[in-house]
Amino acid sequence: MEHDLAEATVAIVGLGLMGGSLAAALSTAKACRRIVGVARRHSTLSMAQDLRFIQTGTSDVQQGVAEADIVILATPVRDVLDKIATLGPSLKPGVVLMDVGSTKSEVCRAMAALPAHVQPLGGHPMCGKETSGLAMADPGLYRERVFVLCPLERTSPGALALATALVRAVGGRPLQIDPQRHDRLVAAISHLPYLLAVTLLNAAADMAGDDVLAWRLAAGGFRDTSRVGAGDVTMMLDILATNRGPILDAVRLAREELGALERSLQDGDFEGLQRLLEAARRRRLEVFPNPGA
Amino acid sequence: MEHDLAEATVAIVGLGLMGGSLAAALSTAKACRRIVGVARRHSTLSMAQDLRFIQTGTSDVQQGVAEADIVILATPVRDVLDKIATLGPSLKPGVVLMDVGSTKSEVCRAMAALPAHVQPLGGHPMCGKETSGLAMADPGLYRERVFVLCPLERTSPGALALATALVRAVGGRPLQIDPQRHDRLVAAISHLPYLLAVTLLNAAADMAGDDVLAWRLAAGGFRDTSRVGAGDVTMMLDILATNRGPILDAVRLAREELGALERSLQDGDFEGLQRLLEAARRRRLEVFPNPGA
Repeated sequence: MEHDLAEATVAIVGLGLMGGSLAAALSTAKACRRIVGVARRHSTLSMAQDLRFIQTGTSDVQQGVAEADIVILATPVRDVLDKIATLGPSLKPGVVLMDVGSTKSEVCRAMAALPAHVQPLGGHPMCGKETSGLAMADPGLYRERVFVLCPLERTSPGALALATALVRAVGGRPLQIDPQRHDRLVAAISHLPYLLAVTLLNAAADMAGDDVLAWRLAAGGFRDTSRVGAGDVTMMLDILATNRGPILDAVRLAREELGALERSLQDGDFEGLQRLLEAARRRRLEVFPNPGA
Repeated sequence: MEHDLAEATVAIVGLGLMGGSLAAALSTAKACRRIVGVARRHSTLSMAQDLRFIQTGTSDVQQGVAEADIVILATPVRDVLDKIATLGPSLKPGVVLMDVGSTKSEVCRAMAALPAHVQPLGGHPMCGKETSGLAMADPGLYRERVFVLCPLERTSPGALALATALVRAVGGRPLQIDPQRHDRLVAAISHLPYLLAVTLLNAAADMAGDDVLAWRLAAGGFRDTSRVGAGDVTMMLDILATNRGPILDAVRLAREELGALERSLQDGDFEGLQRLLEAARRRRLEVFPNPGA
Protein backbone atom coordinates (compact mmCIF):
# COMPACT_ATOMS: atom_id res chain seq x y z
CA MET A 1 0.00 0.00 0.00
CA GLU A 2 1.14 3.53 -0.85
CA HIS A 3 1.59 5.52 2.38
CA ASP A 4 2.48 8.87 0.89
CA LEU A 5 -0.35 10.90 -0.68
CA ALA A 6 2.18 12.81 -2.79
CA GLU A 7 3.16 9.52 -4.48
CA ALA A 8 -0.38 8.18 -4.85
CA THR A 9 -2.46 7.74 -7.97
CA VAL A 10 -6.02 8.77 -7.13
CA ALA A 11 -8.97 7.52 -9.19
CA ILE A 12 -12.17 9.54 -8.82
CA VAL A 13 -15.27 7.72 -10.03
CA GLY A 14 -17.95 10.25 -10.87
CA LEU A 15 -17.05 13.80 -11.88
CA GLY A 16 -20.12 15.69 -10.71
CA LEU A 17 -20.06 18.49 -8.17
CA MET A 18 -18.48 16.37 -5.41
CA GLY A 19 -16.02 14.31 -7.48
CA GLY A 20 -15.18 17.21 -9.75
CA SER A 21 -14.51 19.51 -6.79
CA LEU A 22 -12.33 16.84 -5.18
CA ALA A 23 -10.31 16.49 -8.39
CA ALA A 24 -10.06 20.27 -8.63
CA ALA A 25 -8.92 20.62 -5.00
CA LEU A 26 -6.34 17.81 -5.25
CA SER A 27 -4.91 19.06 -8.53
CA THR A 28 -4.84 22.69 -7.38
CA ALA A 29 -2.96 21.61 -4.24
CA LYS A 30 -0.71 19.30 -6.27
CA ALA A 31 -1.47 16.83 -3.47
CA CYS A 32 -0.98 13.55 -5.33
CA ARG A 33 1.05 12.10 -8.17
CA ARG A 34 -1.74 11.60 -10.63
CA ILE A 35 -5.53 11.84 -10.88
CA VAL A 36 -7.58 9.49 -13.05
CA GLY A 37 -11.16 10.55 -13.69
CA VAL A 38 -13.96 8.11 -14.46
CA ALA A 39 -17.21 9.37 -15.97
CA ARG A 40 -19.80 7.95 -18.31
CA ARG A 41 -19.80 10.86 -20.70
CA HIS A 42 -16.81 11.71 -22.86
CA SER A 43 -17.76 15.39 -22.75
CA THR A 44 -17.35 15.33 -18.95
CA LEU A 45 -13.95 13.68 -19.24
CA SER A 46 -12.65 16.13 -21.79
CA MET A 47 -13.97 19.08 -19.77
CA ALA A 48 -12.20 17.75 -16.65
CA GLN A 49 -8.99 17.36 -18.67
CA ASP A 50 -9.29 20.83 -20.20
CA LEU A 51 -9.69 22.23 -16.68
CA ARG A 52 -6.61 20.20 -15.63
CA PHE A 53 -8.61 18.59 -12.82
CA ILE A 54 -7.51 15.12 -14.03
CA GLN A 55 -4.54 13.76 -15.98
CA THR A 56 -6.31 10.76 -17.52
CA GLY A 57 -9.97 10.13 -18.17
CA THR A 58 -11.87 6.97 -18.99
CA SER A 59 -15.47 5.80 -19.07
CA ASP A 60 -14.34 2.26 -18.25
CA VAL A 61 -14.46 2.11 -14.48
CA GLN A 62 -12.51 -1.18 -14.22
CA GLN A 63 -9.70 0.30 -16.25
CA GLY A 64 -9.85 3.62 -14.37
CA VAL A 65 -9.36 2.10 -10.94
CA ALA A 66 -6.83 -0.63 -11.94
CA GLU A 67 -3.67 1.38 -11.19
CA ALA A 68 -5.04 3.51 -8.39
CA ASP A 69 -3.65 3.64 -4.83
CA ILE A 70 -6.75 5.51 -3.71
CA VAL A 71 -10.22 5.17 -5.26
CA ILE A 72 -12.91 7.71 -4.42
CA LEU A 73 -16.47 6.76 -5.33
CA ALA A 74 -18.36 10.00 -5.98
CA THR A 75 -21.60 8.86 -7.61
CA PRO A 76 -25.11 8.71 -6.07
CA VAL A 77 -25.30 6.28 -3.12
CA ARG A 78 -27.07 3.40 -4.88
CA ASP A 79 -24.48 3.50 -7.65
CA VAL A 80 -21.74 3.51 -4.97
CA LEU A 81 -23.31 0.33 -3.54
CA ASP A 82 -23.29 -1.29 -7.01
CA LYS A 83 -19.66 -0.37 -7.56
CA ILE A 84 -18.58 -1.69 -4.15
CA ALA A 85 -20.27 -4.97 -5.02
CA THR A 86 -18.47 -5.35 -8.34
CA LEU A 87 -15.16 -3.45 -8.32
CA GLY A 88 -13.23 -5.59 -5.79
CA PRO A 89 -11.44 -7.87 -8.28
CA SER A 90 -10.27 -4.89 -10.38
CA LEU A 91 -8.52 -3.17 -7.47
CA LYS A 92 -4.79 -3.25 -6.66
CA PRO A 93 -3.71 -4.91 -3.38
CA GLY A 94 -3.68 -2.39 -0.54
CA VAL A 95 -5.85 0.14 -2.36
CA VAL A 96 -7.74 2.59 -0.15
CA LEU A 97 -11.38 2.74 -1.27
CA MET A 98 -13.53 5.60 0.03
CA ASP A 99 -16.86 7.05 -1.01
CA VAL A 100 -18.26 10.56 -0.47
CA GLY A 101 -21.95 9.63 -0.27
CA SER A 102 -24.43 11.16 2.17
CA THR A 103 -25.46 7.97 4.01
CA LYS A 104 -22.99 5.63 5.63
CA SER A 105 -24.59 2.52 7.21
CA GLU A 106 -25.45 0.67 3.99
CA VAL A 107 -22.22 1.80 2.32
CA CYS A 108 -20.03 0.59 5.20
CA ARG A 109 -21.99 -2.69 5.39
CA ALA A 110 -21.32 -3.26 1.68
CA MET A 111 -17.65 -2.31 2.14
CA ALA A 112 -17.28 -4.99 4.83
CA ALA A 113 -17.87 -7.60 2.12
CA LEU A 114 -15.03 -6.38 -0.15
CA PRO A 115 -12.09 -8.71 -0.81
CA ALA A 116 -9.43 -8.65 1.92
CA HIS A 117 -6.85 -6.88 -0.27
CA VAL A 118 -8.97 -3.71 -0.26
CA GLN A 119 -8.76 -1.10 2.53
CA PRO A 120 -12.23 0.47 2.60
CA LEU A 121 -13.72 3.33 4.61
CA GLY A 122 -16.77 5.53 4.35
CA GLY A 123 -16.52 9.28 3.82
CA HIS A 124 -19.02 12.14 3.85
CA PRO A 125 -18.00 15.76 3.39
CA MET A 126 -20.65 18.08 4.88
CA CYS A 127 -20.84 20.50 1.98
CA GLY A 128 -23.80 19.81 -0.25
CA LYS A 129 -25.04 22.35 -2.73
CA GLU A 130 -28.23 22.71 -4.72
CA THR A 131 -26.20 22.86 -7.88
CA SER A 132 -24.73 19.78 -9.50
CA GLY A 133 -22.39 18.80 -12.28
CA LEU A 134 -18.75 19.35 -13.14
CA ALA A 135 -19.42 22.87 -14.40
CA MET A 136 -20.18 23.87 -10.79
CA ALA A 137 -17.07 22.15 -9.37
CA ASP A 138 -15.07 24.31 -6.99
CA PRO A 139 -11.62 23.54 -5.56
CA GLY A 140 -12.69 25.38 -2.38
CA LEU A 141 -15.83 23.27 -1.80
CA TYR A 142 -14.29 21.22 1.03
CA ARG A 143 -12.37 24.02 2.69
CA GLU A 144 -13.06 24.32 6.44
CA ARG A 145 -15.94 21.83 6.13
CA VAL A 146 -16.35 18.81 8.37
CA PHE A 147 -15.44 15.65 6.43
CA VAL A 148 -16.83 12.58 8.15
CA LEU A 149 -14.72 9.41 8.02
CA CYS A 150 -16.15 6.01 8.95
CA PRO A 151 -13.31 3.49 9.12
CA LEU A 152 -14.37 -0.17 9.34
CA GLU A 153 -12.93 -2.57 11.91
CA ARG A 154 -10.80 -4.00 9.12
CA THR A 155 -9.45 -0.61 7.99
CA SER A 156 -5.73 -0.40 8.78
CA PRO A 157 -4.24 2.63 10.57
CA GLY A 158 -2.17 3.29 7.43
CA ALA A 159 -5.27 3.41 5.21
CA LEU A 160 -7.06 5.72 7.63
CA ALA A 161 -3.98 7.96 7.77
CA LEU A 162 -3.85 8.16 3.95
CA ALA A 163 -7.56 9.03 3.73
CA THR A 164 -7.10 11.62 6.47
CA ALA A 165 -4.18 13.16 4.57
CA LEU A 166 -6.38 13.42 1.48
CA VAL A 167 -9.14 15.13 3.47
CA ARG A 168 -6.65 17.62 4.90
CA ALA A 169 -5.14 18.20 1.46
CA VAL A 170 -8.50 19.48 0.16
CA GLY A 171 -8.94 21.68 3.25
CA GLY A 172 -11.50 19.49 5.07
CA ARG A 173 -11.75 18.82 8.81
CA PRO A 174 -11.69 15.05 9.34
CA LEU A 175 -14.17 13.75 11.94
CA GLN A 176 -14.44 10.05 12.78
CA ILE A 177 -17.90 8.83 13.60
CA ASP A 178 -19.80 5.56 13.67
CA PRO A 179 -21.98 4.99 10.54
CA GLN A 180 -25.24 4.42 12.45
CA ARG A 181 -24.73 7.51 14.59
CA HIS A 182 -23.85 9.49 11.46
CA ASP A 183 -26.99 8.36 9.67
CA ARG A 184 -29.31 9.29 12.54
CA LEU A 185 -27.74 12.74 12.88
CA VAL A 186 -27.78 13.55 9.15
CA ALA A 187 -31.40 12.36 8.98
CA ALA A 188 -32.14 15.19 11.43
CA ILE A 189 -29.85 17.94 10.16
CA SER A 190 -29.65 17.24 6.43
CA HIS A 191 -32.35 14.90 5.11
CA LEU A 192 -35.20 16.37 7.17
CA PRO A 193 -34.40 19.94 6.01
CA TYR A 194 -34.62 18.65 2.44
CA LEU A 195 -38.01 16.99 3.01
CA LEU A 196 -39.34 20.10 4.76
CA ALA A 197 -38.18 22.28 1.85
CA VAL A 198 -40.04 19.92 -0.51
CA THR A 199 -43.07 20.09 1.80
CA LEU A 200 -42.96 23.89 1.75
CA LEU A 201 -42.69 24.12 -2.04
CA ASN A 202 -45.54 21.66 -2.63
CA ALA A 203 -47.81 23.07 0.10
CA ALA A 204 -47.23 26.68 -1.00
CA ALA A 205 -48.13 25.67 -4.56
CA ASP A 206 -51.32 23.95 -3.28
CA MET A 207 -52.25 27.09 -1.36
CA ALA A 208 -51.36 29.59 -4.11
CA GLY A 209 -53.25 27.66 -6.79
CA ASP A 210 -53.17 29.76 -9.93
CA ASP A 211 -52.37 33.01 -8.14
CA VAL A 212 -49.14 34.13 -9.77
CA LEU A 213 -48.82 36.99 -7.29
CA ALA A 214 -47.69 34.43 -4.67
CA TRP A 215 -44.27 34.10 -6.23
CA ARG A 216 -43.88 37.87 -6.62
CA LEU A 217 -44.48 38.21 -2.89
CA ALA A 218 -42.01 35.44 -2.01
CA ALA A 219 -39.12 37.09 -0.20
CA GLY A 220 -36.00 35.96 1.63
CA GLY A 221 -37.80 33.65 4.06
CA PHE A 222 -39.33 31.53 1.34
CA ARG A 223 -36.14 31.61 -0.69
CA ASP A 224 -33.95 30.39 2.19
CA THR A 225 -36.36 27.83 3.60
CA SER A 226 -36.99 26.24 0.18
CA ARG A 227 -33.42 26.44 -1.17
CA VAL A 228 -32.41 22.80 -0.71
CA GLY A 229 -35.61 21.73 -2.47
CA ALA A 230 -33.73 22.40 -5.73
CA GLY A 231 -31.39 19.51 -4.91
CA ASP A 232 -30.66 16.81 -7.47
CA VAL A 233 -33.57 14.36 -7.35
CA THR A 234 -31.58 11.22 -8.26
CA MET A 235 -29.05 11.92 -5.53
CA MET A 236 -31.77 12.64 -2.98
CA LEU A 237 -33.79 9.52 -3.86
CA ASP A 238 -30.67 7.44 -3.23
CA ILE A 239 -30.17 9.13 0.13
CA LEU A 240 -33.80 8.56 1.12
CA ALA A 241 -33.65 4.93 -0.03
CA THR A 242 -30.48 4.15 1.93
CA ASN A 243 -31.41 5.93 5.18
CA ARG A 244 -35.10 5.10 5.44
CA GLY A 245 -35.36 4.14 9.11
CA PRO A 246 -33.70 7.23 10.60
CA ILE A 247 -35.42 9.52 8.07
CA LEU A 248 -38.84 8.08 8.90
CA ASP A 249 -38.05 8.69 12.60
CA ALA A 250 -37.11 12.30 11.82
CA VAL A 251 -40.26 12.85 9.73
CA ARG A 252 -42.42 11.44 12.52
CA LEU A 253 -40.83 13.86 14.99
CA ALA A 254 -41.37 16.72 12.54
CA ARG A 255 -45.01 15.73 12.12
CA GLU A 256 -45.42 15.81 15.90
CA GLU A 257 -43.72 19.21 16.24
CA LEU A 258 -45.80 20.68 13.39
CA GLY A 259 -48.90 19.17 15.01
CA ALA A 260 -48.03 20.83 18.33
CA LEU A 261 -47.74 24.22 16.58
CA GLU A 262 -51.03 23.62 14.78
CA ARG A 263 -52.92 22.61 17.93
CA SER A 264 -51.71 25.56 19.99
CA LEU A 265 -52.64 27.96 17.19
CA GLN A 266 -56.00 26.25 16.65
CA ASP A 267 -56.77 26.40 20.39
CA GLY A 268 -55.53 29.97 20.79
CA ASP A 269 -52.95 28.71 23.32
CA PHE A 270 -50.48 31.52 22.70
CA GLU A 271 -48.41 30.74 25.78
CA GLY A 272 -47.83 27.19 24.56
CA LEU A 273 -47.12 28.53 21.07
CA GLN A 274 -44.64 31.04 22.47
CA ARG A 275 -42.74 28.26 24.29
CA LEU A 276 -42.38 26.29 21.03
CA LEU A 277 -41.21 29.36 19.07
CA GLU A 278 -38.75 30.35 21.79
CA ALA A 279 -37.26 26.86 22.03
CA ALA A 280 -36.64 26.91 18.28
CA ARG A 281 -35.16 30.40 18.33
CA ARG A 282 -32.83 29.51 21.21
CA ARG A 283 -31.66 26.40 19.38
CA ARG A 284 -31.02 28.31 16.18
CA LEU A 285 -29.00 31.00 18.00
CA GLU A 286 -27.01 28.31 19.83
CA VAL A 287 -26.05 26.61 16.57
CA PHE A 288 -25.62 29.82 14.55
CA PRO A 289 -24.90 32.68 16.95
CA ASN A 290 -25.09 35.22 14.13
CA PRO A 291 -28.85 35.30 13.37
CA GLY A 292 -28.45 36.40 9.74
CA ALA A 293 -25.85 33.68 9.01
CA MET B 1 -54.01 66.98 3.22
CA GLU B 2 -50.40 67.39 2.18
CA HIS B 3 -49.96 66.17 -1.42
CA ASP B 4 -46.23 66.63 -1.73
CA LEU B 5 -43.98 64.13 0.07
CA ALA B 6 -41.15 66.66 0.09
CA GLU B 7 -43.31 69.00 2.20
CA ALA B 8 -44.66 66.31 4.50
CA THR B 9 -43.91 65.67 8.17
CA VAL B 10 -43.67 61.89 8.63
CA ALA B 11 -44.17 60.29 12.06
CA ILE B 12 -42.80 56.78 12.43
CA VAL B 13 -44.21 54.91 15.40
CA GLY B 14 -41.80 52.13 16.39
CA LEU B 15 -38.09 52.39 15.58
CA GLY B 16 -37.17 48.73 15.27
CA LEU B 17 -35.72 47.15 12.14
CA MET B 18 -38.67 48.15 9.92
CA GLY B 19 -39.42 51.61 11.30
CA GLY B 20 -35.75 52.44 11.80
CA SER B 21 -34.90 51.39 8.24
CA LEU B 22 -37.79 53.45 6.91
CA ALA B 23 -36.55 56.50 8.82
CA ALA B 24 -33.03 55.83 7.59
CA ALA B 25 -34.15 55.48 3.97
CA LEU B 26 -36.36 58.60 4.04
CA SER B 27 -33.70 60.73 5.71
CA THR B 28 -30.92 59.43 3.45
CA ALA B 29 -33.06 60.27 0.41
CA LYS B 30 -34.10 63.63 1.95
CA ALA B 31 -37.56 62.57 0.80
CA CYS B 32 -39.68 64.54 3.29
CA ARG B 33 -39.62 67.76 5.26
CA ARG B 34 -39.27 66.24 8.69
CA ILE B 35 -39.26 62.87 10.46
CA VAL B 36 -40.64 62.42 13.97
CA GLY B 37 -39.73 59.16 15.68
CA VAL B 38 -41.85 57.55 18.38
CA ALA B 39 -40.35 54.85 20.59
CA ARG B 40 -40.87 53.72 24.17
CA ARG B 41 -37.23 53.84 25.13
CA HIS B 42 -35.28 57.07 25.33
CA SER B 43 -32.08 55.23 24.37
CA THR B 44 -33.73 54.25 21.05
CA LEU B 45 -34.79 57.83 20.39
CA SER B 46 -31.38 59.28 21.10
CA MET B 47 -29.70 56.63 18.95
CA ALA B 48 -32.08 57.45 16.06
CA GLN B 49 -31.28 61.13 16.48
CA ASP B 50 -27.54 60.51 16.67
CA LEU B 51 -27.81 58.53 13.42
CA ARG B 52 -29.79 61.45 11.94
CA PHE B 53 -32.63 59.08 11.02
CA ILE B 54 -35.14 61.38 12.79
CA GLN B 55 -35.28 65.10 13.58
CA THR B 56 -37.46 64.82 16.69
CA GLY B 57 -38.11 61.95 19.02
CA THR B 58 -40.76 61.34 21.64
CA SER B 59 -42.10 58.45 23.66
CA ASP B 60 -45.54 60.08 23.75
CA VAL B 61 -47.28 58.66 20.69
CA GLN B 62 -50.17 61.16 20.80
CA GLN B 63 -47.73 64.04 20.75
CA GLY B 64 -45.56 62.38 18.11
CA VAL B 65 -48.36 61.99 15.57
CA ALA B 66 -50.15 65.29 16.26
CA GLU B 67 -48.39 67.37 13.58
CA ALA B 68 -47.77 64.57 11.07
CA ASP B 69 -49.05 64.53 7.50
CA ILE B 70 -48.13 60.85 7.24
CA VAL B 71 -48.10 58.39 10.16
CA ILE B 72 -46.39 55.03 9.73
CA LEU B 73 -47.19 52.39 12.35
CA ALA B 74 -44.16 50.09 12.57
CA THR B 75 -44.78 48.06 15.73
CA PRO B 76 -45.89 44.40 16.02
CA VAL B 77 -49.33 43.80 14.49
CA ARG B 78 -51.34 43.58 17.73
CA ASP B 79 -49.84 46.86 18.88
CA VAL B 80 -50.73 48.36 15.49
CA LEU B 81 -54.34 47.27 16.09
CA ASP B 82 -54.32 48.96 19.52
CA LYS B 83 -52.93 52.17 18.08
CA ILE B 84 -55.46 52.25 15.24
CA ALA B 85 -58.22 51.91 17.83
CA THR B 86 -56.97 54.80 19.95
CA LEU B 87 -54.99 57.27 17.84
CA GLY B 88 -57.82 58.66 15.67
CA PRO B 89 -58.66 61.75 17.76
CA SER B 90 -54.96 62.77 17.94
CA LEU B 91 -54.51 62.87 14.17
CA LYS B 92 -54.58 65.93 11.92
CA PRO B 93 -57.38 66.19 9.32
CA GLY B 94 -56.30 64.53 6.05
CA VAL B 95 -53.45 62.59 7.63
CA VAL B 96 -52.36 59.47 5.74
CA LEU B 97 -52.07 56.57 8.19
CA MET B 98 -50.24 53.44 7.03
CA ASP B 99 -48.80 50.43 8.84
CA VAL B 100 -46.00 48.09 7.76
CA GLY B 101 -47.24 44.93 9.50
CA SER B 102 -47.13 41.44 8.01
CA THR B 103 -50.87 40.69 8.05
CA LYS B 104 -53.46 42.93 6.46
CA SER B 105 -57.07 41.73 6.93
CA GLU B 106 -57.44 42.59 10.63
CA VAL B 107 -55.42 45.78 10.22
CA CYS B 108 -57.55 47.03 7.31
CA ARG B 109 -60.75 46.07 9.14
CA ALA B 110 -59.61 48.15 12.14
CA MET B 111 -58.63 51.01 9.83
CA ALA B 112 -62.15 51.09 8.37
CA ALA B 113 -63.41 52.21 11.80
CA LEU B 114 -61.09 55.25 12.02
CA PRO B 115 -62.66 58.73 12.11
CA ALA B 116 -63.51 60.12 8.67
CA HIS B 117 -60.77 62.76 8.76
CA VAL B 118 -58.10 60.05 8.56
CA GLN B 119 -56.91 58.54 5.23
CA PRO B 120 -55.84 55.00 6.13
CA LEU B 121 -54.25 52.22 4.10
CA GLY B 122 -52.44 49.00 4.85
CA GLY B 123 -48.81 48.45 3.88
CA HIS B 124 -46.48 45.45 3.94
CA PRO B 125 -42.93 45.61 2.62
CA MET B 126 -41.70 42.10 1.69
CA CYS B 127 -38.31 42.32 3.34
CA GLY B 128 -38.25 40.65 6.73
CA LYS B 129 -35.01 39.76 8.40
CA GLU B 130 -34.13 37.51 11.31
CA THR B 131 -32.46 40.42 13.02
CA SER B 132 -34.41 43.10 14.82
CA GLY B 133 -33.90 46.45 16.47
CA LEU B 134 -32.71 49.88 15.42
CA ALA B 135 -29.05 48.81 15.52
CA MET B 136 -29.76 46.58 12.49
CA ALA B 137 -31.64 49.32 10.56
CA ASP B 138 -30.54 49.70 6.96
CA PRO B 139 -31.54 52.51 4.56
CA GLY B 140 -31.33 49.92 1.74
CA LEU B 141 -33.76 47.45 3.35
CA TYR B 142 -36.68 48.36 1.05
CA ARG B 143 -34.71 48.77 -2.15
CA GLU B 144 -36.09 46.73 -5.06
CA ARG B 145 -38.44 44.91 -2.69
CA VAL B 146 -42.15 44.51 -3.31
CA PHE B 147 -44.09 46.84 -0.98
CA VAL B 148 -47.72 45.77 -0.72
CA LEU B 149 -50.31 48.53 -0.43
CA CYS B 150 -53.91 47.79 0.61
CA PRO B 151 -55.99 50.94 0.13
CA LEU B 152 -59.49 50.85 1.68
CA GLU B 153 -62.61 51.85 -0.23
CA ARG B 154 -62.51 55.13 1.68
CA THR B 155 -58.86 55.86 0.82
CA SER B 156 -58.67 58.87 -1.51
CA PRO B 157 -56.58 58.79 -4.72
CA GLY B 158 -54.45 61.57 -3.22
CA ALA B 159 -53.67 59.58 -0.07
CA LEU B 160 -52.79 56.50 -2.12
CA ALA B 161 -50.54 58.64 -4.34
CA LEU B 162 -48.74 60.05 -1.31
CA ALA B 163 -48.19 56.59 0.18
CA THR B 164 -46.99 55.35 -3.21
CA ALA B 165 -44.54 58.25 -3.42
CA LEU B 166 -43.18 57.32 0.00
CA VAL B 167 -42.72 53.68 -1.06
CA ARG B 168 -40.87 54.76 -4.19
CA ALA B 169 -38.75 57.20 -2.20
CA VAL B 170 -37.34 54.32 -0.12
CA GLY B 171 -36.73 52.25 -3.26
CA GLY B 172 -39.69 49.86 -2.90
CA ARG B 173 -41.92 48.48 -5.65
CA PRO B 174 -45.54 49.31 -4.80
CA LEU B 175 -48.03 46.51 -5.45
CA GLN B 176 -51.75 46.93 -4.72
CA ILE B 177 -53.52 43.85 -3.48
CA ASP B 178 -56.66 42.96 -1.55
CA PRO B 179 -56.02 42.26 2.18
CA GLN B 180 -57.65 38.79 2.19
CA ARG B 181 -55.74 37.70 -0.89
CA HIS B 182 -52.53 39.09 0.63
CA ASP B 183 -53.07 37.20 3.87
CA ARG B 184 -53.67 33.85 2.17
CA LEU B 185 -50.58 34.25 0.00
CA VAL B 186 -48.26 35.32 2.82
CA ALA B 187 -49.57 32.45 4.95
CA ALA B 188 -48.13 30.18 2.23
CA ILE B 189 -44.92 31.98 1.33
CA SER B 190 -43.94 33.65 4.58
CA HIS B 191 -45.71 32.30 7.67
CA LEU B 192 -45.53 28.63 6.66
CA PRO B 193 -41.74 28.83 6.02
CA TYR B 194 -41.40 30.23 9.54
CA LEU B 195 -43.43 27.42 11.11
CA LEU B 196 -41.50 24.79 9.12
CA ALA B 197 -38.20 26.29 10.26
CA VAL B 198 -39.47 26.08 13.87
CA THR B 199 -40.57 22.50 13.19
CA LEU B 200 -37.13 21.63 11.83
CA LEU B 201 -35.28 23.15 14.79
CA ASN B 202 -37.48 21.43 17.37
CA ALA B 203 -37.58 18.05 15.58
CA ALA B 204 -33.82 18.04 14.97
CA ALA B 205 -33.27 18.75 18.67
CA ASP B 206 -35.66 15.89 19.57
CA MET B 207 -33.74 13.55 17.29
CA ALA B 208 -30.24 14.67 18.29
CA GLY B 209 -30.99 14.43 22.00
CA ASP B 210 -27.75 15.06 23.83
CA ASP B 211 -25.52 14.30 20.85
CA VAL B 212 -23.53 17.49 20.42
CA LEU B 213 -22.00 16.18 17.21
CA ALA B 214 -25.32 16.93 15.48
CA TRP B 215 -24.64 20.63 15.41
CA ARG B 216 -21.06 20.15 14.21
CA LEU B 217 -22.42 18.21 11.25
CA ALA B 218 -25.05 20.82 10.47
CA ALA B 219 -24.10 22.37 7.13
CA GLY B 220 -25.61 24.82 4.67
CA GLY B 221 -28.87 22.93 4.25
CA PHE B 222 -29.76 23.07 7.92
CA ARG B 223 -28.54 26.64 8.21
CA ASP B 224 -30.67 27.89 5.30
CA THR B 225 -33.80 25.88 6.08
CA SER B 226 -33.81 26.94 9.74
CA ARG B 227 -32.74 30.59 9.26
CA VAL B 228 -36.12 32.27 9.72
CA GLY B 229 -36.61 30.29 12.96
CA ALA B 230 -34.46 32.96 14.61
CA GLY B 231 -37.19 35.54 13.93
CA ASP B 232 -38.45 37.79 16.71
CA VAL B 233 -40.98 35.76 18.73
CA THR B 234 -43.23 38.69 19.74
CA MET B 235 -43.54 39.81 16.14
CA MET B 236 -44.22 36.27 14.94
CA LEU B 237 -46.84 35.58 17.64
CA ASP B 238 -48.71 38.70 16.50
CA ILE B 239 -48.57 37.52 12.90
CA LEU B 240 -49.82 34.06 13.84
CA ALA B 241 -52.59 35.53 16.02
CA THR B 242 -53.85 37.88 13.30
CA ASN B 243 -53.73 35.44 10.37
CA ARG B 244 -54.91 32.24 12.03
CA GLY B 245 -57.37 30.95 9.44
CA PRO B 246 -55.08 31.13 6.40
CA ILE B 247 -52.09 29.88 8.42
CA LEU B 248 -54.05 26.89 9.71
CA ASP B 249 -55.01 26.13 6.09
CA ALA B 250 -51.35 26.32 5.05
CA VAL B 251 -50.25 24.08 7.95
CA ARG B 252 -52.92 21.52 7.05
CA LEU B 253 -51.63 21.44 3.45
CA ALA B 254 -48.06 21.08 4.72
CA ARG B 255 -49.11 18.22 6.99
CA GLU B 256 -50.68 16.50 3.97
CA GLU B 257 -47.62 17.02 1.78
CA LEU B 258 -45.26 15.79 4.51
CA GLY B 259 -47.58 12.81 5.03
CA ALA B 260 -47.43 12.00 1.31
CA LEU B 261 -43.62 12.00 1.44
CA GLU B 262 -43.67 9.82 4.56
CA ARG B 263 -46.11 7.28 3.10
CA SER B 264 -44.24 6.89 -0.17
CA LEU B 265 -40.95 6.41 1.70
CA GLN B 266 -42.57 4.03 4.20
CA ASP B 267 -44.12 1.99 1.36
CA GLY B 268 -40.96 2.04 -0.77
CA ASP B 269 -42.94 3.79 -3.52
CA PHE B 270 -39.93 5.51 -5.07
CA GLU B 271 -41.77 6.47 -8.24
CA GLY B 272 -44.37 8.34 -6.20
CA LEU B 273 -41.62 9.87 -4.10
CA GLN B 274 -39.74 10.96 -7.21
CA ARG B 275 -42.85 12.74 -8.55
CA LEU B 276 -43.19 14.71 -5.29
CA LEU B 277 -39.50 15.66 -5.26
CA GLU B 278 -39.54 16.67 -8.91
CA ALA B 279 -42.66 18.82 -8.51
CA ALA B 280 -40.94 20.69 -5.67
CA ARG B 281 -37.68 21.09 -7.59
CA ARG B 282 -39.53 22.41 -10.68
CA ARG B 283 -41.44 24.91 -8.55
CA ARG B 284 -38.28 26.11 -6.85
CA LEU B 285 -36.48 26.60 -10.17
CA GLU B 286 -39.50 28.44 -11.59
CA VAL B 287 -39.56 30.89 -8.69
CA PHE B 288 -35.76 31.16 -8.33
CA PRO B 289 -34.16 30.22 -11.67
CA ASN B 290 -30.68 30.42 -10.14
CA PRO B 291 -30.60 27.28 -7.92
CA GLY B 292 -28.02 28.66 -5.49
CA ALA B 293 -29.96 31.95 -5.05
